[in-house]
Amino acid sequence: MSLQILGQQAKQASFDLATLSTSQKNAALAAIADQLEAQQESILAANKIDLDAARQSGLSEALLDRLMLNSERLAGIASDVRNVISLNDPIGSEMDCRVLENGLRLSRRRVPLGVVGVIYEARPNVTIDIAALCLKTGNASILRGGKETFHSNMALVAVIQSALEQSGLPAAAVQYIEKPDRELVAELLRLDEYVDMIIPRGGAGLHKMCQENSTIPVIIGGFGISHIYVDNSVDLAAALNVIENSKVQRPSACNALDSLLVDQNVATELLPMLAERMNKASVKLVATENAMAGLASAKDLQAAGEGDFDTEWLSYTLGVKVVADVEEAIAHMRTHNASHSDAILSNNLPAVERFVNAAGSAAVYVNASTRFTDGAQFGLGAEVAVSTQKLHARGPMGLEELTSYKWIGIGDMLARP
Amino acid sequence: MSLQILGQQAKQASFDLATLSTSQKNAALAAIADQLEAQQESILAANKIDLDAARQSGLSEALLDRLMLNSERLAGIASDVRNVISLNDPIGSEMDCRVLENGLRLSRRRVPLGVVGVIYEARPNVTIDIAALCLKTGNASILRGGKETFHSNMALVAVIQSALEQSGLPAAAVQYIEKPDRELVAELLRLDEYVDMIIPRGGAGLHKMCQENSTIPVIIGGFGISHIYVDNSVDLAAALNVIENSKVQRPSACNALDSLLVDQNVATELLPMLAERMNKASVKLVATENAMAGLASAKDLQAAGEGDFDTEWLSYTLGVKVVADVEEAIAHMRTHNASHSDAILSNNLPAVERFVNAAGSAAVYVNASTRFTDGAQFGLGAEVAVSTQKLHARGPMGLEELTSYKWIGIGDMLARP
Repeated sequence: MSLQILGQQAKQASFDLATLSTSQKNAALAAIADQLEAQQESILAANKIDLDAARQSGLSEALLDRLMLNSERLAGIASDVRNVISLNDPIGSEMDCRVLENGLRLSRRRVPLGVVGVIYEARPNVTIDIAALCLKTGNASILRGGKETFHSNMALVAVIQSALEQSGLPAAAVQYIEKPDRELVAELLRLDEYVDMIIPRGGAGLHKMCQENSTIPVIIGGFGISHIYVDNSVDLAAALNVIENSKVQRPSACNALDSLLVDQNVATELLPMLAERMNKASVKLVATENAMAGLASAKDLQAAGEGDFDTEWLSYTLGVKVVADVEEAIAHMRTHNASHSDAILSNNLPAVERFVNAAGSAAVYVNASTRFTDGAQFGLGAEVAVSTQKLHARGPMGLEELTSYKWIGIGDMLARP
Repeated sequence: MSLQILGQQAKQASFDLATLSTSQKNAALAAIADQLEAQQESILAANKIDLDAARQSGLSEALLDRLMLNSERLAGIASDVRNVISLNDPIGSEMDCRVLENGLRLSRRRVPLGVVGVIYEARPNVTIDIAALCLKTGNASILRGGKETFHSNMALVAVIQSALEQSGLPAAAVQYIEKPDRELVAELLRLDEYVDMIIPRGGAGLHKMCQENSTIPVIIGGFGISHIYVDNSVDLAAALNVIENSKVQRPSACNALDSLLVDQNVATELLPMLAERMNKASVKLVATENAMAGLASAKDLQAAGEGDFDTEWLSYTLGVKVVADVEEAIAHMRTHNASHSDAILSNNLPAVERFVNAAGSAAVYVNASTRFTDGAQFGLGAEVAVSTQKLHARGPMGLEELTSYKWIGIGDMLARP
């Protein structure tokens, strides 16, 4: 099927989805959850084909694990869909209702975006996750997963589409780009006649490719260097707990700490404690010249080179730099892509205010871990993506960020502009 | 000066602007307004150079009039700047403040976008207008006006920059792309390292060019076919008043009526009345076959051809089509770019609900003129653009739409994700 036709069908389905009641959408979600469990066998069989091929092509154990489905994981995915049912449906709510002086009654009503295109990597759970969140917000979705998950995704989409039809909804509400050609991604990015938003879920390369080639608005995000700046006004044991949490809790996450900026007034005291703590957590330290002496007791220490402070480590590695004050910390962050999650550990109010105001990050923390940047943590109930751009949505995106609004003006034939 | 340097300077200025108090920004705006009046002579002299060149190159009287400045118009522009002073500053306000279960105090704070690039046509007032709105919201701006207004714009930007410096603000807060090369526009559209949003203000061609070439988020808008659907449940004299207002008040506006869809149940009665009313207003009618007989008394009537219902007339011309019911009206609108402003004139509640829910327009009216779609009418106090896309902002964009937000999380070192 050509992408043009896929797009047309999605747009047509989006017209139907936009006027569904919440209970109709929830019934379809319930059918999807039930079918995921009922059709376990065919899904796991398809997943096995992907897994076998992935093993043969020598995919790493970590990637194989991301790809792998089993009964327990499928039950978890079904449970996530049921969780989406319980979330508040933002569609139809009205904001800024008022009567203008000329008599027009004006409001903004939340409506679906229309059609959302999602390009993602080798995680089959994303297929269900995105489809469910789009459905809940009345959006049609066009999905394109990694080629390693092809058979799994086809099986999952078949389950979704049969559940949609069973619920009286158009199957084209959730569609999958079946062919593996990379050119189709480029074509999807230019389908602006039908698609209203593109969400890339993957590495910086995918985002860059979407940014450069898409004629459709793209949500850029999911990466950025995370910083903590710490000064001498805080309890150092507590500060080390926050630093360790930010770095170690899940190093592969985009909100994990990349660079620690240590105020010169606390460096002599803090750096040896940091070395000891990071030794215990098996964290490698990559430090500027001015931090090397203080970190001498670190088991795994190396001098920072070109680009190290522009690196999102995604691993047990931490950049360390001694800075003169909060201003140098801010200047460092501005030149090293602080756009995601950054924190200050300080009880010095002017420094805190300055940091919070100046940080260019989607999420700024005071005396708290960068790991908080997460839709579930923020109570959004779901996370579509974490945006690091400034338009439309910034930081964790929940259901509301999958919506737009329309202005509605009600007159009596007499109100005049 | 290279665009790279212009971009760097704008980004640097945006850091300063982001932390200014409202009174600092208002003082700079007041200085700009005062200087516009004080330096009238140099501005009008520059404008005369543009006018003379435009006359020589045979520009139409309408375009010359748009280009022309005089004392009165400059006073009007200064007064518009003073009006921006009186508007509420959205920056710094916080939304969704709450304490999470784990103890983190979370909020969203409104912040500037950063750097806004604006590409516009030959209206010198836009230079001041955009600069003032960006300044009020703490954004740096990079402006690029039409080549016909080059000398006027250079004089206006010189006035702005001297007023900024006089107020202790960076002159680079408002910059103008001085060279006339069209290639520089393409370069601006790829300056994503420094520019956060592009606003094209011009025709469909400019928007299309931005959409296709920009790696920066673009606000698409300012055009679209405007429709009115009228059925037999309303007072026809009142309906004709609304139709006439929508079409005739300012035909060159993007919210002016383009296509009238007449329900078959009211066509026999309404069409002759419409012909008479449009005759008086010197409106040419372009009608489908099924409306021709009813419009027989029209002085200027022609059969609609291919593409006529996809034409934004921007003139005293109106498309007329008889439709079976509200569903045919909706189907017509979906295939003829109803994305800006559309109205239903009806007292039939199910039809009204269906129309409001199904219309894909940024603004939908019930028994009111499409001409209401305007920032001033909506009480926004200003209008940066009228967006017809669904991300970030839709419909008239005021000061709030020139902002983003950052998440702020305040902890006590103990709250854990």
